[in-house]
Amino acid sequence: MDGGNILIFALASDSHTQFFFTLLVMFVAAKLAAELFERLKQPAVAGEILAGVLIGPSVLGLIAPSELTDALSELGVIFLLFLVGLETKPADILRVGGRALLVAVLGVVLPFVAGYLLLWAWGKPQIEAIFVGAAMVATSVGITARVLGQMGLLNTVTSRIILGAAVIDDVLGLIILAVVSSLAKGGINYAQIATTAALAIGFTVIVALIGARAINKLQPRIQKLKVGQSYLVFGFSLCLVLAYVASFIGVAAIIGAFLAGMAMSESAHETDMPIQAEAVTEFLLPFFLTSIGMKLKLDALMNREVILLAIVVTILAVVTKLFGCGLGALSLGLKNAMRVGMGMVPRGEVGIVVAQIGLGLAAVSDAIYGVVLVMAVATTLIAPPFLVLLYKGEKVENEERIFPITPIS
Amino acid sequence: MDGGNILIFALASDSHTQFFFTLLVMFVAAKLAAELFERLKQPAVAGEILAGVLIGPSVLGLIAPSELTDALSELGVIFLLFLVGLETKPADILRVGGRALLVAVLGVVLPFVAGYLLLWAWGKPQIEAIFVGAAMVATSVGITARVLGQMGLLNTVTSRIILGAAVIDDVLGLIILAVVSSLAKGGINYAQIATTAALAIGFTVIVALIGARAINKLQPRIQKLKVGQSYLVFGFSLCLVLAYVASFIGVAAIIGAFLAGMAMSESAHETDMPIQAEAVTEFLLPFFLTSIGMKLKLDALMNREVILLAIVVTILAVVTKLFGCGLGALSLGLKNAMRVGMGMVPRGEVGIVVAQIGLGLAAVSDAIYGVVLVMAVATTLIAPPFLVLLYKGEKVENEERIFPITPIS
Repeated sequence: MDGGNILIFALASDSHTQFFFTLLVMFVAAKLAAELFERLKQPAVAGEILAGVLIGPSVLGLIAPSELTDALSELGVIFLLFLVGLETKPADILRVGGRALLVAVLGVVLPFVAGYLLLWAWGKPQIEAIFVGAAMVATSVGITARVLGQMGLLNTVTSRIILGAAVIDDVLGLIILAVVSSLAKGGINYAQIATTAALAIGFTVIVALIGARAINKLQPRIQKLKVGQSYLVFGFSLCLVLAYVASFIGVAAIIGAFLAGMAMSESAHETDMPIQAEAVTEFLLPFFLTSIGMKLKLDALMNREVILLAIVVTILAVVTKLFGCGLGALSLGLKNAMRVGMGMVPRGEVGIVVAQIGLGLAAVSDAIYGVVLVMAVATTLIAPPFLVLLYKGEKVENEERIFPITPIS
Repeated sequence: MDGGNILIFALASDSHTQFFFTLLVMFVAAKLAAELFERLKQPAVAGEILAGVLIGPSVLGLIAPSELTDALSELGVIFLLFLVGLETKPADILRVGGRALLVAVLGVVLPFVAGYLLLWAWGKPQIEAIFVGAAMVATSVGITARVLGQMGLLNTVTSRIILGAAVIDDVLGLIILAVVSSLAKGGINYAQIATTAALAIGFTVIVALIGARAINKLQPRIQKLKVGQSYLVFGFSLCLVLAYVASFIGVAAIIGAFLAGMAMSESAHETDMPIQAEAVTEFLLPFFLTSIGMKLKLDALMNREVILLAIVVTILAVVTKLFGCGLGALSLGLKNAMRVGMGMVPRGEVGIVVAQIGLGLAAVSDAIYGVVLVMAVATTLIAPPFLVLLYKGEKVENEERIFPITPIS
């Protein structure tokens, strides 16, 4: 295992400086855009994603996506979901479980069918149509969680339904992706898909049900550890363990991080941990948001037909989640249904990953990959301002919050 | 700029899982070792470095150093020095400036001359002897800063001398490295070396002298910014900016981070920033410590002669810093002189980088590179327990500290 050459590459002066240049440009561009958007009374999240579009290959070309930016981006969204989990008690999610399931299922079926039918009607190959449908299923809950968190609204019923539905949505999306991938490889492996589904469901349900109880029992022992900041260190460790297990099983790592946070939500009150986890998130999250924007490749939109298709796919992606998920929450009234629907609209990095797998299996063309990128980034940009509008005037339930986040002005 | 393939590589399931495996093993191994060492009343830092040796290529081979581990390691030490800077007022360093200069100069001359003469007497080529001398000059202040920080002793006079001397040491080391590198390339470029020296000295002196005053003036404006957690965000930004500029000029990025922290040390008292920066450090620092251990390659020690040389070089590396730096601080009494000398012993990542540059310029053989690795890791492991012994009984000056760190039991 001779890592010598890699090391020299990474540490020699030039690439070393390049490393700090990348960090600096991504972080500062994101935060300048956030500042500008806050002054314009727009959600900071949208500004940070647009900053990524600006510095990325599509516009200025200052920074190209790399393994490093992906790693930081992944860490950013992991910590965000861990933090959101810390604010979410398992009982709160279980209470809205039935409705969340309905929201998730309708929010999976409608976009998939619509995406498939559109591409099929547009004359694309069946396997490509199926992949676009699968990419339209994905929900990137990080964006919505950040917007609601900054508004101090993570503890509303609609926020809980969105979080619960996002977890279920991810498990359903995993099963669809497994089916779609085996189709692209030539045939469906039922045993493998059943195993994937059982593992994903088993992991999520078991951790959600017994995680908090186990951590509550462990807490006195954790605080007796000699290592400095033992509770924080335990939290980071649990977050990494569950993110790894989730990723190993095939569920998104963020689901593991969210479950880790949720497992600690009851015992974290008594510690500095939420403020500390928030600081880590503040540092890492801009890399996630700018990374999404950086992935947009406008040069893939080579002709009018592709541009038109990108626009139609994006509209369909917004409308089907809004109606599908909204329908599932309609019993809470029209306004709340629209909040839930809009909260599920962003596709972000999850949609991009699905399209990348299709590209890797040669089931998706470069043009359609570009279309999915536009859809993923556009849905992620469209949702935040509408969320702010839909939640305007909603009372911040400060008494239930375990730590304060600066609200959007 | 087609990042498609890189992206697929980074995000596709297997390497995605590998990413979390790497994070998980490094973090958890470091913290388990820290817990064990604390229970044995040994410094946690040494445990975390040994954990890196254990999981690295030399023993278990679970994780190999990569661009990713280097990036996380670099971020870890950056935040550590930023945090140390936050506890260090510029006036405190300037007050000990003359003594720090003497400590740094003697601590540079002795190891360099000794290393050079030893390798030359051992029959090695002159250029190789010069590179080993240069690698023995380097001081990795992060290790000492972490040990003293965990003991709550960053505000003692000796700690301030160590910090000041480490900054000067780094600038001197840069100049030596510039001379050595141009020698290896065939001739000395005096103009280039003079420019490097002037930039390094100018940057350090200017930021140290006017940084804090500038930030104090800016503070009311920073707190009026609309972006969430504006002071923390500004701190992260300044840290990245100065780390980048330092790296661009050729000084170690950690010097930039330290200066950034120092510039904010006066205004940070009124905010949560130190606790928040500490949380980020707690997450990232284990990657720095395990990375040092992971870089050890025992298979380079192929024969008795090389092993013997590694032992002699290591002893010389400890003795020359201890005596050289100690001599510079002798007017403070023998015990304080030994504290300062021992604090400057760890070579860590800085010594490794010098040897890597020599390897890249074909001036250093694989065997001698292995010798320097052993010296760098061994000095880093030797210093912490002696520091704990030498500082035993020293009163923790809590009233001057702006944030508490769990002291070593």
